[in-house]
Formats: sequence, C-alpha cells, structure tokens
Amino acid sequence: MLTLIGVMGGAVVEDDVLDHAYRIGRMIAEHGWVLLNGGRNAGVMQASARGAHEADGLVVGILPGDTTVGMAPGIDIAIPTGMGDARNAINVLASHVIVALQGGPGTVSEVALALKAGRSVVMLGFPLGVPFSPYYERGQLIDASTAEETVAILESLVHPRERA
Amino acid sequence: MLTLIGVMGGAVVEDDVLDHAYRIGRMIAEHGWVLLNGGRNAGVMQASARGAHEADGLVVGILPGDTTVGMAPGIDIAIPTGMGDARNAINVLASHVIVALQGGPGTVSEVALALKAGRSVVMLGFPLGVPFSPYYERGQLIDASTAEETVAILESLVHPRERA
Amino acid sequence: MLTLIGVMGGAVVEDDVLDHAYRIGRMIAEHGWVLLNGGRNAGVMQASARGAHEADGLVVGILPGDTTVGMAPGIDIAIPTGMGDARNAINVLASHVIVALQGGPGTVSEVALALKAGRSVVMLGFPLGVPFSPYYERGQLIDASTAEETVAILESLVHPRERA
Amino acid sequence: MLTLIGVMGGAVVEDDVLDHAYRIGRMIAEHGWVLLNGGRNAGVMQASARGAHEADGLVVGILPGDTTVGMAPGIDIAIPTGMGDARNAINVLASHVIVALQGGPGTVSEVALALKAGRSVVMLGFPLGVPFSPYYERGQLIDASTAEETVAILESLVHPRERA
Repeated sequence: MLTLIGVMGGAVVEDDVLDHAYRIGRMIAEHGWVLLNGGRNAGVMQASARGAHEADGLVVGILPGDTTVGMAPGIDIAIPTGMGDARNAINVLASHVIVALQGGPGTVSEVALALKAGRSVVMLGFPLGVPFSPYYERGQLIDASTAEETVAILESLVHPRERA
Repeated sequence: MLTLIGVMGGAVVEDDVLDHAYRIGRMIAEHGWVLLNGGRNAGVMQASARGAHEADGLVVGILPGDTTVGMAPGIDIAIPTGMGDARNAINVLASHVIVALQGGPGTVSEVALALKAGRSVVMLGFPLGVPFSPYYERGQLIDASTAEETVAILESLVHPRERA
Repeated sequence: MLTLIGVMGGAVVEDDVLDHAYRIGRMIAEHGWVLLNGGRNAGVMQASARGAHEADGLVVGILPGDTTVGMAPGIDIAIPTGMGDARNAINVLASHVIVALQGGPGTVSEVALALKAGRSVVMLGFPLGVPFSPYYERGQLIDASTAEETVAILESLVHPRERA
Repeated sequence: MLTLIGVMGGAVVEDDVLDHAYRIGRMIAEHGWVLLNGGRNAGVMQASARGAHEADGLVVGILPGDTTVGMAPGIDIAIPTGMGDARNAINVLASHVIVALQGGPGTVSEVALALKAGRSVVMLGFPLGVPFSPYYERGQLIDASTAEETVAILESLVHPRERA
C-alpha cells in the first residue's frame, strides 16, 4: 500500500501560498509518496498537483463533481465523487497525514474532519482559533513555517519508528 | 415546505451549553419550525431534541450510522445515513439557518460547510478564529449571547421581508 | 419515532404507475405513516408526494441536488444532499419498508441497496431478474398486484406482532 | 490521466468466477490500465486485486469503511470512504468502463448506477432481468463469455477511435 499525503488549501490564495503548494507537491513525489488533493484546477490543488507531476509523482484527485470537467492537469487517478463538499470527509480518510495551507471554510472543514478522524495535520501559514487549541497541545496539529519544514514533519509522521 | 433550523454542537459540553440547547430546541418548536440535528443521544443533540419534543415540535435527526442505535429520544424523523461525518454536509444543506453552540471539530466542520454553502450561522458562545473573520464582516456569521437572542436572530433570518 | 415508508419508482413512467403512486401515497398518509421519496418533481416521486399531501400526510424528500430547485410540491421536509445518486443509499436506510414501482436503473439500485441493508421491499408491477430470486424465496421481496394489496402488505410488515 | 477499469462482483462467489476475476485483473494491468474495485478482502475484489498486483499493475480500492481494516492485499491506493454502500456510486463514477461478474444486490446496484451515469458495462456470466433490456439494445450493456472476450470488449471501449 502506498502512502498518501493529503494537501489541502484554498482555490483562491496568494502567490507565496501557491509556491509553497508547488514545492510541497514536488517533495511529496520525491519521497515516493502519493499526493492526494481535491483535484480542481485552482489554487493549492492545481499548484500541488503540478509540483508532484513535474517530479514524476502519482497524484490522486478526489473531485466534488461527477465528471472530470475542471480537473487540474497532472492528476493521474481521478475520483469524481458527485458528492460536492461531502467529499471533504473522504479526502481526510484517504490521507495518512494532511498538510493544510491557507484557505477558506472548505479547508477549515477538512482540518476539522481530519482531527476528528485522528489524522495529524501540519499547518503552513494557516492560523486557526480557540477550538483547535487542544489539538496543538496534544501534538496532532503542528505548525510549520516553510515548505521544507512541512516535509520534514511529514517524514517524522510517516516513519515514526525509524526516528524513535 | 417546513422551515428546518439546524442546531449543531458538541457531544460533550458543559451544563450551561446543554441548557442553551434545550431552550433553543423549545423555542424552535414554539415558532413552528422543525429542529434538525445530528441525532445522537449526547450533548447538544440530545438536549435540543428534548427541548423541541417537550414543546410538541417536530425533530429530524441526520444520523452518522446506518441504524437508529444510539439515537436521541424525541427524534421523530430518523435519517440514518451510514456515512459517518460526511453527513455533516447534509446537516447544513438541509437547514435553512444554522445555530452553533460550543463543540469540537465536528461542530467546526459544520459551521465551515454551512458558510461555504451560503447558510447564515448564529453562534452562541462558540468563538472561532481568523479564517472566519470575513464571514462576521459580511453578516453571515452572527454572535448571540443568550438563547433568547439566538432565536430573535433566527426570526429575522427566517422572515427577513416581514422585518424589513 | 415515526414510521417512514419509502416509495421508489421512475421519473418517467406510464399513467397507471402514476395512479398507483398517488394512491399509495394517500394510503400511507391515512395510516399515519410518513412518506419518504427522492423528492424530485417527476413521475412516481411527484405523484406519491401529491397523494400523501392531499391526505394531510407528512412527506420527506431526499433530494439529489444541493438545493430544493426541481422539488415536488407537497414535500414538507426537504433534505437536499448534494450527493447525486449516492443519496439512493440514504433513501433506503431511512425507510422502514420500501415500495418499488416501475422505474429504471435508479429504482433498481434502490431495490438492490434496500435488500442489502435488510429492508423488505414490496414490488408493484416491477419484475426483476435472476439475481433477485433468493430474496423472493426468503420473503424479503414481495410482489403485489394493486395499490391496495401493496398497502395491506405494508401493514403486515409495519405491525408484525399485532398480526402474529 | 490514467484509465481506470472498475471490476465489480460478489464477496462470495464460485471458483470459476474468482478465476475470471483474477485473469481480468491480470489483463487490465498488462494493458497499462488501473484496476478499481471495492477493496475488500473477499471474492471478486480480492481475486481481481491479486491478478492486477501480480502483473505489476496499480490497484485502487474504494472501501466502504473508514479504515483499511479488511482490505485486500495488493491494493496500492486505498480510499476509505466511511460511507458504506453509498460508495458504490463513487465506484462507478471513478471508472471509465465497468466489468460486472456474478454477485448479489451490491453488484446489481453498481451495474444500475453505472448505466444511469452513462458508463458502459461488460457483463461476464451475470444475467440481469427485464429492466436492463433497453441498455442491451443500445449497446451500453454487453455480454461476454470469457475473461479474454471481456478484455477484448474493454479494448474497443477504451480506444474506440483507434478501432473505428
């Protein structure tokens, strides 16, 4: 079974966020992991898919619609769900670890569902509020400040025993 | 078509939150609205269902499991979905307006999905962080400080024209 | 908890099927049961909702879209799911017993999912093929020849002990 | 984007059906297609995954549960959905073409949903009844009698232009 890393984030974000998404996508591929995202041709989904694709990685897109219309280039495995935002729950269940970049309520819902499903979430530049404090305290939510630091944390989460 | 008011909140909350949930449930029924919640026999779901039921209201429970095991007493219309937390997306689509009381990541995911789906959300004692600020500014997220104020805001949202 | 009877059938069917759907909807309401259907303003969904509504019954519509656009008149409790045909699984989980009238593959999928979920299905004029034979043999699939006979079978399934 | 072929069929089937599933899985991998199935460690799911895996193919499993417990060996990309049988709708939306072997109501629901979603379905030893006749007539449902013939039909459906 391959290791899937979910990368979540907004469809409309600033350029530095797109750059982070692209580089995280690249590094996910370079580590031999599979990138999973929401599959749309916009924002963090598009940039992370492009990064992983250009590094010859495998990309899974869990699409909200029931077709591949509007899908990001570079998606290898397209999973149209026809379920709209209810597919956010699948995004997190199918990911071993989740990275969250800046986004709107869709991204917040994915972080929240990921925590509820017991997944660790690495946050890069996406501060959340009071309800998330307990998850920071127990180490399930982890802040990173660069794409490189994000991937270093992913390494420690994917291979915890080797590091212990 | 009847007006459904979704009441969201945690399965494990403090007593004053349960009291708010109970009274909001009662007042929803007294206004002739239908209460919709997540249907489980715990916390805000249980208390709001009891309030609406005792005031002879109709209660719809959108359940995460595929049976009615663990359902709150007072649910009239049980909708087992078998979808786990993916049913949170249905909770908000089926609600005309949403009330959110204190809760954990499940409740946060419902607030986030509600905002993304264009629903107004009245918050009673549940402060959220930075990503939600734009929704406060545009009036889609509204803070209330008592159960009575919560319902007064619901009135203005359900019958906007009569109030204009 | 109220008893929900699911009535499934095609969006495009002949007039006698619509007449059956209308009369079954009426009788469901007259028995004090809740009618549940797919909620669209077409065929068996429309006719059964009209029947139940005209007999002052309560009607629940589990809609495939994420809005109430295209909903049948007479639906009291609208549950937009935004899940397309994946909502067929919810239709059957939320129904205590299912009636299936003539339909296409959507209706067949509902009968199949209902059987898998352990629900009894009363068939009125909708012959199915070889894979369904075991379910006829064990009495989980039951053929009826009129609307009245359909409802008589529903009575025996909803109140099995009183009849024993 | 890779070509996903969905292989559906029962969890409890006879040995010749398992042999068909295994060989179809192998040939799907040998054609460079991705095998998609329901992912459980039983019946047609297990056998087809084994076949594709042994031929170095890529296998996607769309699981009904919210974990990978009970997953078939050989699944590379595990997508736990937590949605139970509602995931059958995703199985067909994510498949370019579907193969159906002998099965129970779950398999019937997948064939029905596939037809409704416009997908072609190749049937190997799985006779269906009257409601499916129109789909045979228009060529959307196609009977095959061997694993080899099944894959030959898949070729014609995946590469229609090259064959025209």
